[in-house]
Amino acid sequence: MSTSVYIGAKEYFPGIGRIPFEGRDSDNPLAYKVYDADKRVGGKTMAEHLRFAVAYWHSFCATGHDPFGPGTRVYPWDAGNTPLARAEAKADAAFEFITKLGVPYYCFHDIDLAPDADDIAEYEANLQHMVGIAGERQKATGVKLLWGTANLFSHPRYMNGASTNPDFAVVARAAVQVKAALEATVALGGENYVFWGGREGYACLYNTDMKREKDNMARFLTLARDHGRSIGFKGNFLIEPKPMEPMNHQYDFDSATVVGFLREHGLDKDFKLNIEANHATLSGHTFAHDLQVASDAGLLGSIDANRGNPQNGWDTDQFPTDLYDTVGAMLVVLRQGGLAPGGFNFDAKVRRESSAPEDLFEAHIGGMDAFARGLEVAHALIESSPLEGWRQDRYASFSSGAGAEFAAGRSSLEALRSLALAQGEPQQRSGRQERYENLINQYLLR
Amino acid sequence: MSTSVYIGAKEYFPGIGRIPFEGRDSDNPLAYKVYDADKRVGGKTMAEHLRFAVAYWHSFCATGHDPFGPGTRVYPWDAGNTPLARAEAKADAAFEFITKLGVPYYCFHDIDLAPDADDIAEYEANLQHMVGIAGERQKATGVKLLWGTANLFSHPRYMNGASTNPDFAVVARAAVQVKAALEATVALGGENYVFWGGREGYACLYNTDMKREKDNMARFLTLARDHGRSIGFKGNFLIEPKPMEPMNHQYDFDSATVVGFLREHGLDKDFKLNIEANHATLSGHTFAHDLQVASDAGLLGSIDANRGNPQNGWDTDQFPTDLYDTVGAMLVVLRQGGLAPGGFNFDAKVRRESSAPEDLFEAHIGGMDAFARGLEVAHALIESSPLEGWRQDRYASFSSGAGAEFAAGRSSLEALRSLALAQGEPQQRSGRQERYENLINQYLLR
Amino acid sequence: MSTSVYIGAKEYFPGIGRIPFEGRDSDNPLAYKVYDADKRVGGKTMAEHLRFAVAYWHSFCATGHDPFGPGTRVYPWDAGNTPLARAEAKADAAFEFITKLGVPYYCFHDIDLAPDADDIAEYEANLQHMVGIAGERQKATGVKLLWGTANLFSHPRYMNGASTNPDFAVVARAAVQVKAALEATVALGGENYVFWGGREGYACLYNTDMKREKDNMARFLTLARDHGRSIGFKGNFLIEPKPMEPMNHQYDFDSATVVGFLREHGLDKDFKLNIEANHATLSGHTFAHDLQVASDAGLLGSIDANRGNPQNGWDTDQFPTDLYDTVGAMLVVLRQGGLAPGGFNFDAKVRRESSAPEDLFEAHIGGMDAFARGLEVAHALIESSPLEGWRQDRYASFSSGAGAEFAAGRSSLEALRSLALAQGEPQQRSGRQERYENLINQYLLR
Amino acid sequence: MSTSVYIGAKEYFPGIGRIPFEGRDSDNPLAYKVYDADKRVGGKTMAEHLRFAVAYWHSFCATGHDPFGPGTRVYPWDAGNTPLARAEAKADAAFEFITKLGVPYYCFHDIDLAPDADDIAEYEANLQHMVGIAGERQKATGVKLLWGTANLFSHPRYMNGASTNPDFAVVARAAVQVKAALEATVALGGENYVFWGGREGYACLYNTDMKREKDNMARFLTLARDHGRSIGFKGNFLIEPKPMEPMNHQYDFDSATVVGFLREHGLDKDFKLNIEANHATLSGHTFAHDLQVASDAGLLGSIDANRGNPQNGWDTDQFPTDLYDTVGAMLVVLRQGGLAPGGFNFDAKVRRESSAPEDLFEAHIGGMDAFARGLEVAHALIESSPLEGWRQDRYASFSSGAGAEFAAGRSSLEALRSLALAQGEPQQRSGRQERYENLINQYLLR
Repeated sequence: MSTSVYIGAKEYFPGIGRIPFEGRDSDNPLAYKVYDADKRVGGKTMAEHLRFAVAYWHSFCATGHDPFGPGTRVYPWDAGNTPLARAEAKADAAFEFITKLGVPYYCFHDIDLAPDADDIAEYEANLQHMVGIAGERQKATGVKLLWGTANLFSHPRYMNGASTNPDFAVVARAAVQVKAALEATVALGGENYVFWGGREGYACLYNTDMKREKDNMARFLTLARDHGRSIGFKGNFLIEPKPMEPMNHQYDFDSATVVGFLREHGLDKDFKLNIEANHATLSGHTFAHDLQVASDAGLLGSIDANRGNPQNGWDTDQFPTDLYDTVGAMLVVLRQGGLAPGGFNFDAKVRRESSAPEDLFEAHIGGMDAFARGLEVAHALIESSPLEGWRQDRYASFSSGAGAEFAAGRSSLEALRSLALAQGEPQQRSGRQERYENLINQYLLR
Repeated sequence: MSTSVYIGAKEYFPGIGRIPFEGRDSDNPLAYKVYDADKRVGGKTMAEHLRFAVAYWHSFCATGHDPFGPGTRVYPWDAGNTPLARAEAKADAAFEFITKLGVPYYCFHDIDLAPDADDIAEYEANLQHMVGIAGERQKATGVKLLWGTANLFSHPRYMNGASTNPDFAVVARAAVQVKAALEATVALGGENYVFWGGREGYACLYNTDMKREKDNMARFLTLARDHGRSIGFKGNFLIEPKPMEPMNHQYDFDSATVVGFLREHGLDKDFKLNIEANHATLSGHTFAHDLQVASDAGLLGSIDANRGNPQNGWDTDQFPTDLYDTVGAMLVVLRQGGLAPGGFNFDAKVRRESSAPEDLFEAHIGGMDAFARGLEVAHALIESSPLEGWRQDRYASFSSGAGAEFAAGRSSLEALRSLALAQGEPQQRSGRQERYENLINQYLLR
Repeated sequence: MSTSVYIGAKEYFPGIGRIPFEGRDSDNPLAYKVYDADKRVGGKTMAEHLRFAVAYWHSFCATGHDPFGPGTRVYPWDAGNTPLARAEAKADAAFEFITKLGVPYYCFHDIDLAPDADDIAEYEANLQHMVGIAGERQKATGVKLLWGTANLFSHPRYMNGASTNPDFAVVARAAVQVKAALEATVALGGENYVFWGGREGYACLYNTDMKREKDNMARFLTLARDHGRSIGFKGNFLIEPKPMEPMNHQYDFDSATVVGFLREHGLDKDFKLNIEANHATLSGHTFAHDLQVASDAGLLGSIDANRGNPQNGWDTDQFPTDLYDTVGAMLVVLRQGGLAPGGFNFDAKVRRESSAPEDLFEAHIGGMDAFARGLEVAHALIESSPLEGWRQDRYASFSSGAGAEFAAGRSSLEALRSLALAQGEPQQRSGRQERYENLINQYLLR
Repeated sequence: MSTSVYIGAKEYFPGIGRIPFEGRDSDNPLAYKVYDADKRVGGKTMAEHLRFAVAYWHSFCATGHDPFGPGTRVYPWDAGNTPLARAEAKADAAFEFITKLGVPYYCFHDIDLAPDADDIAEYEANLQHMVGIAGERQKATGVKLLWGTANLFSHPRYMNGASTNPDFAVVARAAVQVKAALEATVALGGENYVFWGGREGYACLYNTDMKREKDNMARFLTLARDHGRSIGFKGNFLIEPKPMEPMNHQYDFDSATVVGFLREHGLDKDFKLNIEANHATLSGHTFAHDLQVASDAGLLGSIDANRGNPQNGWDTDQFPTDLYDTVGAMLVVLRQGGLAPGGFNFDAKVRRESSAPEDLFEAHIGGMDAFARGLEVAHALIESSPLEGWRQDRYASFSSGAGAEFAAGRSSLEALRSLALAQGEPQQRSGRQERYENLINQYLLR
């Protein structure tokens, strides 16, 4: 992408220019310490590995509200006389921010980009108008669309679910938005299309027919897939798992649940997973675990890069700064050969208390540096450290002889028993967890 | 089953006879208040609905140890001079207890019933000997075997897993036990065979190849299935999900995960699920949720009846006493038409502080009464309350017209959009959660 | 209180009259099944025991928003042309609802009752105006104010805390509201005054001086106490503990923390605790536990009656329906001789999906019935069951002899060692947990 | 301490010598990468700052058992013919290990060091014998005792508590052990004495009189304090908080609870807190939080250095390797001027799967390096980074003028309101959480 900065009719982040790379010794909060877009790590540049995206909703729409209070930030782009004027100003602010940050991608929901409307024609017209604007900005800047999606969870009509709503009328209404958002994504060259089923779940099991709702969800996704393919969408459809919140239980609980669901309904050729760190931890897993489960199924498509904290049982959507998380994630990504056409989308928000404009820059800088460092460490662990060799040795007994026969499905309990009789008590082999953990720290500090 | 009590060479629970049903007004701690085996609820007796089983390990083997101290109970049957003599005495105590309680089934691990031994021949001989003893006791009493299983998690050799061990030698050794336990189960007319993979998971993701381990688990289960069928086992194989403990993560995380795994590996024709309440809650679900997921997949095979508590993040395996849990469970079981050939196994232990022999009786009585009351309430809710009607009305829009077409997979986003345009904004429909919850309490108190 | 219903200029809940008591066999969702206000339980009526209050904010202000969407309910009283007109209509709706329900108390925040304003004079005038209105309604209906409080957590100015804000200017601004809310409470005869410190805590420990902030909180509470007493407030000041949410950590974490804080700062003569069920469970305790801790300190002042669920790690504020919770709570309350001048305030909200007006009635009915049944069962357990005797026997060794000497602080390690030498190994005494748990179920079903 | 290695009658860790410091570029798993005992950080050496201790129980007694299986390690020192011979060999192994590691301190429970016995005289004789042995080893090596304690949680007699047991006979028996362990600690020059109340809590609230039990605990601690002071113990008594496990609830829940308890009972002059990382996280806090609470109360006495993991709800007692934890801890410790006479005790165990002798060395090396790096980073943050200045600026409004008057307790609500009227709406100040978090990462990577 271009390194020039986009400024629209008005500059929304005055005093902040293109964020430079200054290296680890810099004390400048508005400079990258690790992320150096063109630096090569293995065969690719950092930018090619990481494919960062800015999330339109958190960064340009939401102002910091939480269940106990309204937003704290007043955005200068939220000042026009009409919804469309405000949406256009927001787009200017977004492209200014994204180019100042030097990030190659962005992501949106339909009603982040364009004003929502209960009237279907008005909603569609709004979206088409803003797709035109966004397309111009993309062309001007080289910024690309990582993925689009439809917001099927905020409007009160979706309170009991969108595709899983007990009322068919709501399912039909949801189709309006998915159709429009898919078409917008295709129009803008989006490389993926995401479903996050925030209301697809239940508040109460007593009033819910879970099987019926999940079957309906599968049918709806099938229709969306068919429509997308019919209009030329070549990218991945992505499901984003989350176990709960806002619902008591959500159907896309975690990677394993979604993988099983996609396979059950024949959707695993077109759909992959978009794994969010904070959603993984809410489901009782580490971020790396849920990435690995998806990757092992051949279905890791993209990543929502953020972080929760173990003391809080809701989606805090903090910017990712924990280097153990980023190393763990990059190990999975590098081992599967990269994430394209997916990327790392910052589905993260500055804290409600972070009310200054530069907080948004610093938050992204911190997240990008954390993943860049994760990339460097994971690359070194894989290429230069004993890690991969240790792992291969650990499973060596399945690579030849009776172990390989077993692994190939050619054995029997009887045959295994005979081997056990012949071999005597197996030798004890330490799992060496502490040695592995020390190795991670060792490479983190190099 | 017979209502006579079995007493072996020695009476192990002197002073306690056959536990009577005395009804709700009884103050006798050693009487049933609700569970009346022959009382009919709908078309079946309570005994036929509930198919209770006593767990050999908790009730006759474990003495109350926890991570911070050894057991607190000294069992009079644990006093013989040889391992086999102690095992025989334990069997006498078990059948005495089971018949005094009036429970029709029991469940065991190989090394609950018979002494373990590192020497394979000795292990097999021990088990065969005790199968002979148990068979005689079953015949004498009418007590039956709900399921058998092999303990592949206690012995240090399984510390890194049994069928998922990185060392093939351990996998082979595990086959010895599964083969023997399967054969014991068949010999004793066991109606199911269970796998609980306590060590099938990881302590540390860094040293683990999750995909390889899970593939090996599938192969191993396939061999077990084939062996079982070859020796005439007609019952269900059952997987018991648990998310963690003793491992950091266990592969059989929850119902959804296991359902997906069984289908992926073509095992869902022979395997079903054995859902334990406390395991469900450890995985972030309610007991009813995980039962419903399994039932919706046609794979709910049996239940481990116990309870955790939300304040503690480990498997407390308490006896079930929460009537909301038992009502929720019985709703699922009644709606799927019963649990046979599965049953309700009390995989529950008296507290370490419950050191008196009568505690074991009272604990089972409390659990049985709780499920009997759950049965009564769930039956009334389904047959006499508005519950089922409310639920059907809620989804009525999918029963005819365009909704039914959609549910049958015959629709398109385009068609749904046209419907949405025509219908206008969907009418708001309250989920009525509070009304449903009040109904449960209303029937609980009747 | 009067049994007549208040209807203002407009009836806001047409078609629903005064909620009758109809008993357990009633199928009427709009009738009490257990709560019979004048029924005597022990020496007091149910109404005297339970002192229920309706929460103004959840029931008349909040429309169901959550972090992922706006409210779902449109209130007919929220339709006037000016903020004050809407506030007056809301007051009419509130008193209509409260009198139809037949609840004797209500609770409010300053800005529930009256429109907020950044301008201090306008804020104060609004509140004074609405205090006048509310006073008239109280007089007309006999409904009383259980407690008032100031909302110091919603306005963006409090994002970093109110009394614990790092900026003194915000602390001063918070004083405006506390002063006004205290005066409003006194004017309306409020029997208690509550502090819930939603923003008194930290989002991030790195930028926080916890000691300084907590000391400032103590100073602020001291000033509030002094002002309250100076204007004639005779009731209890109450602190409502909550461990987290919206902040990462809140200083009033749980009962034990607040008890320690109050004593440290000499506030325990004027302040007691207002324990909320869902806050207790978020802090890792049961509701009963946190009640007991407060009661043991002589500081249990009032109760926020609601419920969370163990699957969700945020404040779900559901209406209380779990009878184990209500029995546990009433055991503590009855043992301390009642809760007056505190009461049971329904700090609970109908689900976002519960969009019908009758849901609000049914939710309260369910909660009141649950506590009424909890009262009946707890009373029977204390008065008629062996419960209290079992507990006394368990500790009998401290009632006389060396045990009593020890309990009185008159002993030494040396003396205890001599006793131990003389007595031999202590006899094992079962804790009998299962017997206690069975007893609870037994009385629940009677 | 001496840098020579102690070898007793037999070398228990052959092939491993004194662990050297080799620096960050070393690939030797048996070398320190960061911990360089004599390296100065600020005014003290790393050894003086960190005062590491080895825990006798985890490292020399426990063999890896968990609730689902027995231990996996066979210790060569556990081979003698008598309990005392095995205890002597264990002491040799311990001092060999400690001196090879180069750690200056160790910690023990009475029955780690010496064989337990139900007979009081035998128990006391055993302990006195082993105190003699340990004293000789200390003299020979320069290794010192950081703290001693009595194990009042493993023996079945303590199943219902030790000092909080409902049976006074058990309280008396507990005094035997505390008296003996205190005397052993004094005899060996122990610098602290610890109470961890593993069974001081409840399994079930129904059968428990919490107030009575906690009062008894206070009386017991008072007697222990008095005895300790009477025999010349000058060090700190330490309470180690833990919220649960093995009990459902433990009375020493967290720092705030224990601080309140100590103050209530007048014990805060003699007692401080020993904070364990994994206990802090089980109570819903970060390690740093509970350290800060203790430190703010002037009561942070010592640290049990380990780590849990957020996916598991029990005490995993892993070796500390998370650098964010160690930086957070060292910030608290450095700000309070150090931890002496306390230290960092590795209350941590190698995984059950870590069965090789070198695992124990590597685990300690990893933990020591993690804290050494935490020390370096925390020191740099405090001395060289803007961290402390940022924090001071944030609270500057309380350092002069009306803010300082308020902080000194000289203000009123009326006065604050007047200030608020005069000042106008407070200026919004960002909390800048992201900037602080980025700063931590920046210094971590330097």
